[in-house]
Formats: sequence, structure tokens, C-alpha cells
Amino acid sequence: MEIHLIGLGKMGFNIAANLLEGGHSVKAFDTNIDLATKLQEKGGVFFHSVNELLTSPMANAEPRIVWLMLPAGDITNTVMNECLALLNPEDILIDGGNSKYTESKINNQKFTEKGIHFFDVGTSGGVSGARNGACMMIGGNKAIFQTIEPIFESLCVENGYLFCGEAGSGHYLKMIHNGIEYGMMQAIGEGFNILHHSEYDYDLEGVAKVFNNGSVIRSWLMELTENLLSEDAALTDIEGVVASSGEGKWTVEEILRLELSAPVITQSLLTRYSSKDEEKYGEKVIASLRNQFGGHAMTKKGE
Amino acid sequence: MEIHLIGLGKMGFNIAANLLEGGHSVKAFDTNIDLATKLQEKGGVFFHSVNELLTSPMANAEPRIVWLMLPAGDITNTVMNECLALLNPEDILIDGGNSKYTESKINNQKFTEKGIHFFDVGTSGGVSGARNGACMMIGGNKAIFQTIEPIFESLCVENGYLFCGEAGSGHYLKMIHNGIEYGMMQAIGEGFNILHHSEYDYDLEGVAKVFNNGSVIRSWLMELTENLLSEDAALTDIEGVVASSGEGKWTVEEILRLELSAPVITQSLLTRYSSKDEEKYGEKVIASLRNQFGGHAMTKKGE
Repeated sequence: MEIHLIGLGKMGFNIAANLLEGGHSVKAFDTNIDLATKLQEKGGVFFHSVNELLTSPMANAEPRIVWLMLPAGDITNTVMNECLALLNPEDILIDGGNSKYTESKINNQKFTEKGIHFFDVGTSGGVSGARNGACMMIGGNKAIFQTIEPIFESLCVENGYLFCGEAGSGHYLKMIHNGIEYGMMQAIGEGFNILHHSEYDYDLEGVAKVFNNGSVIRSWLMELTENLLSEDAALTDIEGVVASSGEGKWTVEEILRLELSAPVITQSLLTRYSSKDEEKYGEKVIASLRNQFGGHAMTKKGE
Repeated sequence: MEIHLIGLGKMGFNIAANLLEGGHSVKAFDTNIDLATKLQEKGGVFFHSVNELLTSPMANAEPRIVWLMLPAGDITNTVMNECLALLNPEDILIDGGNSKYTESKINNQKFTEKGIHFFDVGTSGGVSGARNGACMMIGGNKAIFQTIEPIFESLCVENGYLFCGEAGSGHYLKMIHNGIEYGMMQAIGEGFNILHHSEYDYDLEGVAKVFNNGSVIRSWLMELTENLLSEDAALTDIEGVVASSGEGKWTVEEILRLELSAPVITQSLLTRYSSKDEEKYGEKVIASLRNQFGGHAMTKKGE
């Protein structure tokens, strides 16, 4: 199949390479023109704008299949609007980024009004997965999905894609996947922190390794833990600050919207926020209150 | 090697079968004499008491290796004391159950005083692991460990055992393993609960399956989730009450002892307690307080 790929970042480029390896034709655009040669080496064709990509006589399969692999939010929405103006009825637009499912529902409506088929695809498996076989969760029109299914057969590991239902359901599932991921990661982090502070002198790389062989908690995340501990189990060069890129927050917003109790996923997000809080204003308030009512010691800066 | 196994429950029996398959000799005792025939069919020899097992001329390898596979707590401690009286210096006692590491440290001292070598072994991988290849975490004397290493080579999957250090470190590691397990399970439970309540009609078995193929959260626990959802994704026949058998509680006690912040493991334990709380006394207090200060509706039983 011929795929028009927009965005050749670490995920997008690997998807391009993976598609080309699967025998598909890839025409792509990225603002970083340094990627042109890299893409050409893999057999892809590089374009210098969305307009050029979608209007070039070189890229004229019908219907056109456009795959967006861009950071969620403004960039995705801007490019989405460019595509909306350039695509024709029956063309297919796939948002493979980490967009919020509510945005995908709105985008689906916009494209559907013009007769363009919209798909929201959540991708998991990281950068290596994009290159060697990913996991994809797909929302959109089922009959049209079947016409583009070979793309997912090429991109994913065996049994590694799921058609989830109507538009929005792909990104929704990816959001919850990430919520679970937050919780699992936090549990692993906490467990290894206890071991690090324990009275025993564990070989923590060996611990992660034994956990990966026959235990109940064997998992890809534990394999990654083994990798990271093999380099420097003391983790001296790593800052203990955990960013988050949206899905965890959206999961907690959804928990609140549905009024469900999901304390571990929620707490995993809050712990990330706390890790970024250098000011510790809240702890200052508490230390000061203890000092006021109980005369408990309070350390002032510079003391 | 010749192993004297005490306890032929679901874990112990599978360990016996696994050892016999590995070419070891197994003499075993259990209070359930119905297991005698089952054990004999596998090639093991059944004894009717700890005393008979350890004094029989049929089981006289020196040093004797005794493996306890009993419920942690009173039963383990009672049998441990029987063994203490019957074993000789240089004999080896392995506690393969889920004992608390502080108990294992005390037991180690008792046996060491008599010149008997004590090992605490945490076992993971569930009942199927015990039969087909488990994961084991071992504390005790390293030099003596090397003399019994062939037992662990037989019982565990490749790279599936770790000599952790001094006595206590095996059960300590198993405790923290279970703490991580609590957090991972809670994250999975919460995630699927959100999906179950979401606006989309997900095939939840298919969701677990796609999560297991190429995603970041692929794991043995997710494979078990796929199994359970394949039977009845609505889970109508299951009571939403989660028991806990000690390690989670001990992990939280250890978190408090070390004064560490591990909110997700802690919350996972508390959520299990909450699931067992039919009386909901705390919620009654809150509902009643809201009613008093704000006139908010409060449902009385029978209304």
C-alpha cells in the first residue's frame, strides 16, 4: 500500500522503516530536512511540505492514506487542518500520535463531514516496537479498517493490533494502557527503592533478572529495569524527576468524570508531579505548622 | 540429591513432582494421607510424621536436606521446632514457604546455634511455576548453598534463582516482590474497571490480548488477565473481595520501619482491605456528617 507519512520523529521514522521493509510505499514529510537522505536510503520518498506531499503527482494513490505521527496537541491539530483542506472524500486519515480521545472524536467529526475516513490509532511498544513490531489500538469505521488492515499486519507483532470500535476508542484505550503503565512503573520504582534502602546488600540487577525468570511479576517493564540496573545500579547519574506526557493526566480526568475509584493510577501521576516539585511549598507549610503548635524543630534555609 | 519434603499442598506437591522429574529422591510427609498414593505414583516415598521422615533408615542421606513447604506462621514454626530437635549438625533446613523475614532471621539463629544450616527461600511463579519451573530467592550460607544448588537448577526456570545473601534476604526479597505484585495487580484492576465503565464497548479479552502482544505493559499478570477475561469478561460469578496473605502487609510495615514513601504499594494493600469491608462503618460516619452539616440526603437501611 502507499502511505503518506507526516512526522519522521523517533516513532515516525521507525514506522517508515518498518513499512518499507513490509513492502509498502512510503512518501513522507518532516520539517527536519536532514531526514531526507536517511529516508531515501530506506527506500522512501521525502517531501518538503504537507502540501507538496498531498498534491504531488508522485504520490497519487486513490484513496490516499495519510498517517500522522506527530506530538499530540497543537502540532497535530494544525497539520490535521492542513490535511482537511487537501484531502478528498474517501481518503483516509490516521492519527497515530498520542492525541486525547476527546480531540479524536472532534477530529473524526470534522473529517467525516467531508467524507474522509478518520482513524485514531494508539501505539505502544516504544521506539523499538515502532521499528520491529508495535502494538496498536485502532478506532474508526470497521469496513474501511479492513481495507487498510495490511498496514497494521506489517507494523505490529502477531496479534499486536486490535480494532476497538468507533473513532475515539483507539486513543481511549491507549490512554488507559498508559494509566496502567504508570501504576506498574510506580510499583516497580517503589519496590526497588525499598530494596535499595534495606539492610541487605542486594545485587539489584540480579534481582530484576530473577524477577524476569519464572516470577509472577515478569514483564517487559521489569526487563527494562534489568537493563537500566545493569549499567549503574546506584543510578547516580539520573535525576529523580519524572515527566508525564498527558495520558496519565487524561486517565485521572476520566476517572473523575466517571466518578470511579482508581487510587493507584491517580497516585502514580501525583507522585510524578511531586518528583518535579523543587519548591516544596506544601511541605514548608506543614513544617511551619508543626513548629507553631508543637515547637517542633524547623530547618530554615542557610541554617 | 535426596530431599526430605514436609508439606505436600498445591505448592509442595508440585515441587515434589518437579524434583522427582529432575532425578532427585523425594521422601515426604504430609498430614493428608490421601497424598501418599499420588506421591508414590510419581516415584516418591511417603512418611506419616516428621519423626518417621527424619529418623527412618530409608531416608538417611548425610547431611540431610529438609525442605519445608508449609503455610507461614504457626504451622511452619511448630514443624521447624520438631526439625530442630531431630536434625544433626551439618544438616540443612530450607524454609520454602512465605515466612516473614524477621521470623527467618530468628529461625536461622536457632538452627545455626545447633550447627544446622538454615536457608530461607522465597518462591514465585505460582502453582504452575512450582510444577514446571519456578523463581526462587535464596538467603543463607553461600558455601553451603553451592552444595545444594542442583536442587534449584532442577526446580527453577533458567536464570530463575538468585542467591541473595545472608539468611533473611530470600524471604525479604520475596516480600518486596509481592509488594510490587500488589501494585501491578491493582493498576491492572483499576485500568480494566475504567474500560468496563467507559462509553466504548470494548472486547476486554481482546484488549488484554493486544496488551500482551508488543505493548509496554505486556506481562505474565496481563496474560493471566487475558485468561480470566476469556471465560467471562463480565466476571459475574466472582466476588470483588481480595484477600491478602501477609507479604503485602509486611511490605507496608517495612515501608513504615524505613520511613520511605511507597504510596502505591501501600494503597494496593488498603484497597484489598476496603474490598473486604462489608460494614462500611467509615462511610456511614461520612454520610452522616454530610447529613448533619449540610442536610445532604443520607440513605437509611430499609428506605
